[in-house]
Amino acid sequence: MLNASSLYAAIDLGSNSFHMLVVREVAGSIQTLARIKRKVRLAAGLDADNMLSREAMARGWQCLQLFSERLQDIPQTQIRVVATATLRLATNAAIFIERAQAILGCPVQVISGEEEARLIYQGVAHTTGGDDRRLVVDIGGASTELVTGTGAQTSSLFSLPMGCVTWLERYFTDRALAKENFAAAEQAAREVLRPLVGKLRYHGWKACVGASGTVQALQEIMMAQGMDEHITLLKLRQLRQRAIQCGRLEELEIEGLTLDRALVFPSGLAILIAIFTELNIESMTLAGGALREGLVYGMLHLTVEQDIRNRTLRNVQRRFMVDVAQAARVESLAQNLAQQVSPQWELDALSQQLLSSACLLHEIGLSIDFKQAPRHAAYLVRNLDLPGYTPAQKTLLATLLLNQTNPVDLSSLHQQNAVPPRIAEHLCRLLRLAIIFASRRRDDCVPALTLTASEEALHLTLPACWLKRHPLGAELLEQEALWQSYVHWPITVQP
Amino acid sequence: MLNASSLYAAIDLGSNSFHMLVVREVAGSIQTLARIKRKVRLAAGLDADNMLSREAMARGWQCLQLFSERLQDIPQTQIRVVATATLRLATNAAIFIERAQAILGCPVQVISGEEEARLIYQGVAHTTGGDDRRLVVDIGGASTELVTGTGAQTSSLFSLPMGCVTWLERYFTDRALAKENFAAAEQAAREVLRPLVGKLRYHGWKACVGASGTVQALQEIMMAQGMDEHITLLKLRQLRQRAIQCGRLEELEIEGLTLDRALVFPSGLAILIAIFTELNIESMTLAGGALREGLVYGMLHLTVEQDIRNRTLRNVQRRFMVDVAQAARVESLAQNLAQQVSPQWELDALSQQLLSSACLLHEIGLSIDFKQAPRHAAYLVRNLDLPGYTPAQKTLLATLLLNQTNPVDLSSLHQQNAVPPRIAEHLCRLLRLAIIFASRRRDDCVPALTLTASEEALHLTLPACWLKRHPLGAELLEQEALWQSYVHWPITVQP
Repeated sequence: MLNASSLYAAIDLGSNSFHMLVVREVAGSIQTLARIKRKVRLAAGLDADNMLSREAMARGWQCLQLFSERLQDIPQTQIRVVATATLRLATNAAIFIERAQAILGCPVQVISGEEEARLIYQGVAHTTGGDDRRLVVDIGGASTELVTGTGAQTSSLFSLPMGCVTWLERYFTDRALAKENFAAAEQAAREVLRPLVGKLRYHGWKACVGASGTVQALQEIMMAQGMDEHITLLKLRQLRQRAIQCGRLEELEIEGLTLDRALVFPSGLAILIAIFTELNIESMTLAGGALREGLVYGMLHLTVEQDIRNRTLRNVQRRFMVDVAQAARVESLAQNLAQQVSPQWELDALSQQLLSSACLLHEIGLSIDFKQAPRHAAYLVRNLDLPGYTPAQKTLLATLLLNQTNPVDLSSLHQQNAVPPRIAEHLCRLLRLAIIFASRRRDDCVPALTLTASEEALHLTLPACWLKRHPLGAELLEQEALWQSYVHWPITVQP
Repeated sequence: MLNASSLYAAIDLGSNSFHMLVVREVAGSIQTLARIKRKVRLAAGLDADNMLSREAMARGWQCLQLFSERLQDIPQTQIRVVATATLRLATNAAIFIERAQAILGCPVQVISGEEEARLIYQGVAHTTGGDDRRLVVDIGGASTELVTGTGAQTSSLFSLPMGCVTWLERYFTDRALAKENFAAAEQAAREVLRPLVGKLRYHGWKACVGASGTVQALQEIMMAQGMDEHITLLKLRQLRQRAIQCGRLEELEIEGLTLDRALVFPSGLAILIAIFTELNIESMTLAGGALREGLVYGMLHLTVEQDIRNRTLRNVQRRFMVDVAQAARVESLAQNLAQQVSPQWELDALSQQLLSSACLLHEIGLSIDFKQAPRHAAYLVRNLDLPGYTPAQKTLLATLLLNQTNPVDLSSLHQQNAVPPRIAEHLCRLLRLAIIFASRRRDDCVPALTLTASEEALHLTLPACWLKRHPLGAELLEQEALWQSYVHWPITVQP
């Protein structure tokens, strides 16, 4: 049913690490089979004349020996191997490439900075939701890419000769996390950036996403410290302050920062602060993918939709055989209820979108078993790769699905940071009511409801005699009012 | 994509409880949407003249009001409602049935004991694995069914006028768990059984499965107490002893016995002991389904295969989009290895079948995400409804899948009771080796292996130069030998 011809591989010979991504195309979506990363530190082997040392080459070849065994079973046309900044720079790159190709048995392409930027943008466009007029930032080991675009289309592409490895070697030579080192690193980065600020601003953006290890590390730090997932200049400066307090690179300790990211974190942070300052960025979120995803989606010829989240939702519904008509019925009722209370509850567009997503996925747990289906749904949403949703949004969705029925676990609704706790409670209440009143699985059986809110109190008006005519529905509603009262969510029902 | 026409409902108006089962047919298998159970205790409303009281009827009708709301959206031809012993007996049953039909809007069929036995057998045949020459035992509230058969075909059918509710009323009238009460209840049951012992023995059986609440309760008790899942006369007698020690019904307390099953447990136990004794049964396991499942599978016209487990495995593979060629490759290698060590390790047929099942399902976790795929696989197997596998077998499979790679968690292998701990360790080692050597996903890349065992020590011989030619494979194998050594599983490799 599925064989080697559905396998694809993307290899990226980066300045810090070599990466291999192996995926399988299944039912129109991508299933990751392997991600292998080796810290080859190629950039460390460049001397002052940009000659790559034999030792660095040997480390690279040894890594490729490992990769090659995995590649042998994948059709050549479904493999792409690209090399970036260090091999662009190395004057003796040809020697490395020749042997690399012999080991891998397929061509290795040294791509230009512009091509790298374009691929990164594609990877982001295919995996990141939200507003699609965006600025993409990727801080690599030896280069930084900045791209603006809309949907799948880039409007400007820049690749700059600065990266977290080169900036580490240049401005943190003494391994001191001194204020002066940060200042010098930031100043240098701002100078590299300055010539293109005007061009980037000309194209403009509504949302800014970051795709590198630095941004990934920031995301992990913010999650660990219970902050929301928006990177702001304020947060970056606080982290810089914390780093300076640690004094030296080997003593750097920040809650949520892992050992493998620590070495190049301060230099990456300095570059990011410079980018925020020069480009006047208010907020940045983590992208769902970058270069390797761009390579893979490019080979698969999948198109980018207006909102990548729609593709994700349809895909998950199909894979887990969701009753799509019922999902749509619950979504439409939930949106109807949300509209009615919106003057009081002020649900913004993102919150409403997340409510819709929860509705469209609420029954996926049934694909595992009807017993504890809400728990299964939460498990799936928490663990599935959902292109277009950030980790915090996935956590919110999982929490909503867990609380779609049965007694409410308030603490779980407060342990997410995609939206404020009160908003999460509101979304949960709307989802639960929509599920109850759509439970007959027929459009003509959804009653016309009037819902009003006054602060936290909900008042629900039902059609005349509805409770009398629907004993099971009445039982469900009575139980629901009880459950909501347990967590101090007042609800009155007008029969 | 899926609508009301894929819904089916089965309702069973039993002597103790009314049950409704609503399922959806999806991709050739059954997905349960709802199980609703109400303790109507219809049998308690029968007087000495077999007249059903108005109160009992009213309790029944009220319950059916609730059921009916769920039924309205299901096509009439996809609903079956049957009534059993109490309504067979009640002289005024017609009054109850007439109103019941009006409430439900569909016919209610009072089925004969033989028809009930036939349906129970079908439900068992569709949901229970293992040897298919079987004896099925179902102890209901007012009747007990005994059926022999092979595959989907019954060879003899009996419905006896004894049940856990009627035996409770008759032999435990004083609610004392006295030795004498048990003796009387058992003696009476043996007399009911005696006339058909010869006929049942004539047809014979290789496996015995139980399908009632009594057997379900026994299963839960044995699981809670860490025993294996085979019910034996010895265990039944020990439980009777324990019950007698408790003295009175309201003081009955056995680890794993839930409150809702406690009332009719002693009477059910007495009947089961009589059945074991009269029919000389060595061991009994729990069936995966009974009457309601028989009704549902009957409407769906699914055929019973030689081994129901094959259908289950194929279904799960399809639903979770498993690479079936790879699954088969790992299975065939694992069986090959199992054959080689079978003189020393003595794997019986069931263990080998469970090893195959683990191989065929080992990649289902990838359908969730490749990160922690073994954990996802274990989660799925633990929670999926897998017709043909007992709860203990599901636990073993989940444990094997959890330990398919990475460091071994020995304690989890010992916390199952489908097979002895040592056997679970052996199956785990074979699965892990098969996965490593099939990892190229090509038949022509699976090396010819020679595996020998001497007690717990494994000795593996590889083709000449294999390690040299396969650096990734060599790395995997070296890591594996290390992991096995951590849990004192000696393995040597002959390059």
